[in-house]
Amino acid sequence: MTVNEEVRDDIIIDEGKLIEALEKQDIKSFRDEYLTLHPYDRAVFYEKVDEDHRKTMYFFLSPKELAEIFETSEIDEDEYRQFLQEMDTTYAADMISYMFVDNAVDVLKELDKTQIASYLTLMNKEAAAQIKALLHYEEYTAGSIMTTEYVSIPQNSTVRSAMTILRNEAPSAETIYYVFVVDEDNRLTGVVSLRDLIITDEDTLIRSIMNERVVSVLVSDDQEDVARTTQDYNLLAVPVVDFQYHMLGIITVDDIIDVLDEEASDDYSKLAAVSNMDSFDKTSLSAAKKRIPWLIILLILGMLTANLIDLFTDTISQVALLAAFIPLIAGTAGNSGTQALAVAVRGIATRDVEDESKFKLLLREAGTGLITGLVCAIFVVGLIFVWKHEFIIALLVGVAIMVSIFVATISGSFIPLFMHRMKIDPAVASGPFITTLNDLISIIIYLGLATTFINSL
Amino acid sequence: MTVNEEVRDDIIIDEGKLIEALEKQDIKSFRDEYLTLHPYDRAVFYEKVDEDHRKTMYFFLSPKELAEIFETSEIDEDEYRQFLQEMDTTYAADMISYMFVDNAVDVLKELDKTQIASYLTLMNKEAAAQIKALLHYEEYTAGSIMTTEYVSIPQNSTVRSAMTILRNEAPSAETIYYVFVVDEDNRLTGVVSLRDLIITDEDTLIRSIMNERVVSVLVSDDQEDVARTTQDYNLLAVPVVDFQYHMLGIITVDDIIDVLDEEASDDYSKLAAVSNMDSFDKTSLSAAKKRIPWLIILLILGMLTANLIDLFTDTISQVALLAAFIPLIAGTAGNSGTQALAVAVRGIATRDVEDESKFKLLLREAGTGLITGLVCAIFVVGLIFVWKHEFIIALLVGVAIMVSIFVATISGSFIPLFMHRMKIDPAVASGPFITTLNDLISIIIYLGLATTFINSL
Repeated sequence: MTVNEEVRDDIIIDEGKLIEALEKQDIKSFRDEYLTLHPYDRAVFYEKVDEDHRKTMYFFLSPKELAEIFETSEIDEDEYRQFLQEMDTTYAADMISYMFVDNAVDVLKELDKTQIASYLTLMNKEAAAQIKALLHYEEYTAGSIMTTEYVSIPQNSTVRSAMTILRNEAPSAETIYYVFVVDEDNRLTGVVSLRDLIITDEDTLIRSIMNERVVSVLVSDDQEDVARTTQDYNLLAVPVVDFQYHMLGIITVDDIIDVLDEEASDDYSKLAAVSNMDSFDKTSLSAAKKRIPWLIILLILGMLTANLIDLFTDTISQVALLAAFIPLIAGTAGNSGTQALAVAVRGIATRDVEDESKFKLLLREAGTGLITGLVCAIFVVGLIFVWKHEFIIALLVGVAIMVSIFVATISGSFIPLFMHRMKIDPAVASGPFITTLNDLISIIIYLGLATTFINSL
Repeated sequence: MTVNEEVRDDIIIDEGKLIEALEKQDIKSFRDEYLTLHPYDRAVFYEKVDEDHRKTMYFFLSPKELAEIFETSEIDEDEYRQFLQEMDTTYAADMISYMFVDNAVDVLKELDKTQIASYLTLMNKEAAAQIKALLHYEEYTAGSIMTTEYVSIPQNSTVRSAMTILRNEAPSAETIYYVFVVDEDNRLTGVVSLRDLIITDEDTLIRSIMNERVVSVLVSDDQEDVARTTQDYNLLAVPVVDFQYHMLGIITVDDIIDVLDEEASDDYSKLAAVSNMDSFDKTSLSAAKKRIPWLIILLILGMLTANLIDLFTDTISQVALLAAFIPLIAGTAGNSGTQALAVAVRGIATRDVEDESKFKLLLREAGTGLITGLVCAIFVVGLIFVWKHEFIIALLVGVAIMVSIFVATISGSFIPLFMHRMKIDPAVASGPFITTLNDLISIIIYLGLATTFINSL
């Protein structure tokens, strides 16, 4: 076995050995094995073992060592509360104070106000002050996900002095790969990457190598816009400023990835009408709780459709074959509406929509609806005619499908664009509601036409 | 106006000025303004102007300067071909050779084989060799998105010699924030971050500060797995190795973000039954082309439902009210199936599913289906009884809804898990097919029961 294969094998966590060490109260062999793991793997293990083992771990690990585990994204947010309760209060406060301040805020936000206050009282004043400053930012803004642990240097520094500052601040800064240049009022005036610093002569003035066109975001910006900006400009961190351009903090790329992921899950779950599925539910009951409200709303909306069809029972009693095509027509309207909606919601999320005029976009969707409706109608008329040899019914279904695809496509793109304009999250309007609307419209067209031409059937 | 506000204003691109400079053939003022922009903003401008302006830009900018623009993600992949055709062939080949090799490969992959060959012949041999080595990796694997431009150092280096290597390679490396340590056979044995290098004494041996537990991925790994690993471990770059642990390349976080984004768009569009909506379509026709195939498939599936209902026309002629609830029952089955599907697909994508046994998961979904079905059934029976005073029909609809929610929930989670096991992308099975399956099952249950009990109605 070569050295390298050994290295690889090492990465697999020896859970049995770790648990044995915990049970035997063998602090040395536990720490020897555990602390060489990557923080992510440490978190996976910590989250997996039972409460008793975790309580032993609190004795085996310092608050600072545990803080590193809490930094990773592996631990679910709703578990923070439980884990903190298992710990001694002072130990927990200490642990939180060792975390990067943005992550500490994430943990505290899951607790109620008295708990937050008690932890803040117990931790060192500096950490508490930093956390307090971040706690009041509104959720989903740049402020709520930024950290204040960045490296900034005065404009008049040389590369040498900048490197000295960097070395000193490295242990506490979340990233040292960008150094932000500020004036005497702490206003952001430039940025230098560590890459530039290490290849430049030490006596060079920062001012002469810094990039003055810094891409920055406002503290009140929506976190999704921040994420898109960071992605567009391929940044490892983006500075956060206020209206006067004072530097307030930075947001690092790992947090950006989490925002993008959250947003994607969110849009997806709304399209599927599930409340929130960041993670799998542990029990059937909690999963059912998330799904039932949606299904009940959809049932009530479905009753509208049932009510509408009920108005046409006379027609249906006479030509029962008409009923066979109701799900087909309603389904097709629903499908084309969902397609248009998905394109619009995703276009808004990725900001493709902003590049062009909304009016042109709607016009184009209308064109798409027309073409799609026509093609599908011709197809379905042929299909029904071949199958049933009922030309009039085939024509009726065809017309209903054409009109309802057209209407569904327009409403599917207009409604989310309108909601976006009104600053409402367009994904909320999602599938189910548009589908019901389209169901109603398509059934009125279909059964209305059928009732009008009942004598020809 | 302060200095800082000026900086901010500068970021807004003065398009008019740039276009004027292009039209006046004023190379100096164009370059003065354009080259201070961020590459992303340069790309936005480049992509926006018309062909004549772009052709002037090819005279104003060196191939190296243009390469920087092509690196950004702003330019759509299907536009590469057009842009390259606008350029002089030698200029284009030169430009490609200046790009980071992974991005160069992305550009070339959009072209046909003769074009690729002619560009490779024209560019310098070293760049061509690097590109050729990457071109043959299969799409969607780690190999297809990695770059070979990383910094590696021998195990026996000191921090000082490592920093010298780093400074020399900085201009051509895609990231210098991780330095990979290899043995004499180029096998990966460790990693050191630039952060560690700059805070460590220069005479220290790399071996003593490197992290031996390097998180790495196999060259054949699926790109989505690579992305999740990078996200889990909060890495800025992940090394790519072969089975013998030889270092082949790295994948940087900006490419990881693009993979995650692509995957999310992909799952989302499959749920919505749109083929591919990475970007908005430019014309109604191209949008219609993407949507019609799906709608036609769904229409054919819908005809199955229509056919099935047609078998029950006798029953419907007798009690036309039955028809009113068909869309409600089919819709509810479809909705609960989509919920279960979405949770499973998203769970697979974020790898939550792998943490526990599939059997337990299905058991839990069955439980969820049972609870959900029961609650919705009770609700709907009450609703219909109050509305129509038809107790038997209410009961019929209730039973049909309960059974079909139960079946839909199980099939909605079983099918994607089964497909994942079979190594088929579970998102393919998506909404429409599961919905049709559930439509059929729920209608058989509903109309079957109705026909059996027709005399009681």
